[in-house]
Amino acid sequence: LLDTAKLLEQLRELGAIGHDAAQGGRIRIALTDEEKAGRDLLVRWMRELDLEVRVDQIGNIFGVLHAEHPEGMAQPLMMGSHIDTVRNAGALDGCYGVLAGLAVVRAYRQAGLRPARAIVVAAFSNEEGVRYQPDMMGSLVYAGGMDVQAALHTVGTDGTRLGDELARIGYAGDMLPGAIVPREYIELHIEQGPVLEAEGKSIGVVESLQGISWQKITINGVANHAGTTPTRLRHDAGYAAAACVAFLREQVVAAAPDTTLATVGSLRVEPDLINVIPRKATFTVDLRDPDEQRLQAAERRLADFLVTLAEREGVTIETEQLVRFEPVVFDAALAARIQAAAERRGLPHRRMTSGAGHDAQMLARIAPSAMIFVPSRGGISHNPREHTHDDQLALGAQVLLDVVQDCLRG
Amino acid sequence: LLDTAKLLEQLRELGAIGHDAAQGGRIRIALTDEEKAGRDLLVRWMRELDLEVRVDQIGNIFGVLHAEHPEGMAQPLMMGSHIDTVRNAGALDGCYGVLAGLAVVRAYRQAGLRPARAIVVAAFSNEEGVRYQPDMMGSLVYAGGMDVQAALHTVGTDGTRLGDELARIGYAGDMLPGAIVPREYIELHIEQGPVLEAEGKSIGVVESLQGISWQKITINGVANHAGTTPTRLRHDAGYAAAACVAFLREQVVAAAPDTTLATVGSLRVEPDLINVIPRKATFTVDLRDPDEQRLQAAERRLADFLVTLAEREGVTIETEQLVRFEPVVFDAALAARIQAAAERRGLPHRRMTSGAGHDAQMLARIAPSAMIFVPSRGGISHNPREHTHDDQLALGAQVLLDVVQDCLRG
Ligand SMILES: NC(=O)NCCC(=O)O
Ligand SMILES: NC(=O)NCCC(=O)O
Repeated sequence: LLDTAKLLEQLRELGAIGHDAAQGGRIRIALTDEEKAGRDLLVRWMRELDLEVRVDQIGNIFGVLHAEHPEGMAQPLMMGSHIDTVRNAGALDGCYGVLAGLAVVRAYRQAGLRPARAIVVAAFSNEEGVRYQPDMMGSLVYAGGMDVQAALHTVGTDGTRLGDELARIGYAGDMLPGAIVPREYIELHIEQGPVLEAEGKSIGVVESLQGISWQKITINGVANHAGTTPTRLRHDAGYAAAACVAFLREQVVAAAPDTTLATVGSLRVEPDLINVIPRKATFTVDLRDPDEQRLQAAERRLADFLVTLAEREGVTIETEQLVRFEPVVFDAALAARIQAAAERRGLPHRRMTSGAGHDAQMLARIAPSAMIFVPSRGGISHNPREHTHDDQLALGAQVLLDVVQDCLRG
Repeated sequence: LLDTAKLLEQLRELGAIGHDAAQGGRIRIALTDEEKAGRDLLVRWMRELDLEVRVDQIGNIFGVLHAEHPEGMAQPLMMGSHIDTVRNAGALDGCYGVLAGLAVVRAYRQAGLRPARAIVVAAFSNEEGVRYQPDMMGSLVYAGGMDVQAALHTVGTDGTRLGDELARIGYAGDMLPGAIVPREYIELHIEQGPVLEAEGKSIGVVESLQGISWQKITINGVANHAGTTPTRLRHDAGYAAAACVAFLREQVVAAAPDTTLATVGSLRVEPDLINVIPRKATFTVDLRDPDEQRLQAAERRLADFLVTLAEREGVTIETEQLVRFEPVVFDAALAARIQAAAERRGLPHRRMTSGAGHDAQMLARIAPSAMIFVPSRGGISHNPREHTHDDQLALGAQVLLDVVQDCLRG
């Protein structure tokens, strides 16, 4: 029923766009030329399946398989994810959910059947959020959580304006974000973490998603000579940043080591010269916890430390909140349908929470939503070595199709 | 006798080259177009004083005021420093010593006198060492401490080859480095540290210079997802680097807080993205101590820590020694002449050690050498706010002239 070979072939073909020979993997960052090439390919595939293609004002792409009867469009079923990537990404993060959605539609086409309700396959803009914050921006705007004009005015880490880049690549559509309100939203994704593999499960029934707090921290110190400046007279922005990175791991994470995560992914110092004490350090903090109270506690600990640090080192510290999403609980009925589908096929499965942010957490604001996970080899993602076995990819897509059929039956 | 106004005017004029409107100060990094413009101006000024201009194979520039009798060239007196800068530097670091040397020569010219021995004003290549390591490279090569071919093959932080850049700017001379062996070398410089100002002294009699150890450290971890990777499974190259920066301050410096200095001036992570655990971190370590034993102890502590850290975090760590200079003791007789000159003029002075590296430490290998310091306001250098009052600059140049005359008398 499900054309697995075609799904795998499309994953390979889309995954080839933006290939980076130097560091491996692909670089298809939101609204770049490479991502435009990915979008063009996706739209071509949607047209080949005779879907109606719509693009909204934030660049989200929708492929619509219309229902037997026109009133079927009133309450469509939506599947989706994203096709933008981080730098040197794997081929699966996001693309798997979108292309599995196409595979489900293809199954209907190949069987010559029309669904009882319309089926929509969505690819949301700028899910990764590495160039423009917040992440999950396309789905956030779609769900009414961010004003589309504000989103278009977002300035990226490279100084570009999101709206300009969107127009430049030709994906500034005219559909209003949120115009198609789905009756349910289902997102199939690789886990990107180690849990399913470690426990030998094939399917993750994702019933919740942890809270995410992103901050940008800027420390201003005083540049001075590395050889002549006594330590007690230094205002070393680089050391202060390092002390903060160490504090996050050694104090904040250590306070709740099984649930709180802290990551400093980006860190830069100026003037960045061997014999000059850094005058400035800029870094990002990614804090996560499935529990809102604990996430707030981590944020408070960090904020308190920054006050002490600024005082102690004689530096000034500015923080900017880039992203703040509370933990999300997905729709229980939809999760139950996913679990039932896995059970019917006798697949080992478990209930779980998502560590990564996903478009489903935004869609959950306007429609019953849930997610299906498949294992990630070694728990590795955001890395060229991200991998899931073809058989596991096929099983995940099969469960997605089962759940879609189940939903459309009633 | 000494034309102070002209000296200050030349400091301003040379200081204007490479001006950086964005961050202030000047950027005249070794062998760039801006530094070439500085060299051209210096050579013009040397020619205006009717000096013979020579350029050696590593690009060191010499302006020679010949003696009354040709045999005076056998044992010339040399003054000098450098005109390259760090990024966003002050106008005085290096240039002051070179242009004060020209002022001394000008005093002879204006008095219509020929010295008993030739006087050479030197501007050594690549003293700062921010683009090509080691620092003090021109004087090191000149003193026979580094092979000139090896120096020309040095690859810079920007991937350029030093010899190519030297040829490109037209300063690959044909004189053999070390061809002129001075009978004494005297370098006038701003202190770049806070000691003279804090003690109200006008003149520093520099009798020694601390040891310098520069390393480049590369940490390789594993990129992974910030939201899905449990802390205990992380191999975070950025955290490991931060832990090392914190260790240097909190353990290595803390073990000898009055003498050991540690600076991490350059620090980069890859892929440098908010939600990706860094796969790689690269940073520099600048360790200094006036005592060789203590410097070695600091190096050992760092090396031991890196072993523990690599083990603990599951990362690999490579270290590369970029620079290693032992502490230098300057010529006692020359230092005594400097002190006597300051005393004759009734200037408050003190004996001191230099925190910064200087060309004098290299020339000390082939000639009796010493240095004269003047105060730096607030102890600030390698910063656009580097400043020394004009009166203090004039006093320093006067003491230099006094010492030169004293030396030439016999
Ligand atoms: N799935 C995924 O990688 N999303 C990016 C947003 C995040 O950092 O969690
Ligand atoms: N004087 C000076 O700034 N020299 C640069 C070499 C060093 O870092 O000490």
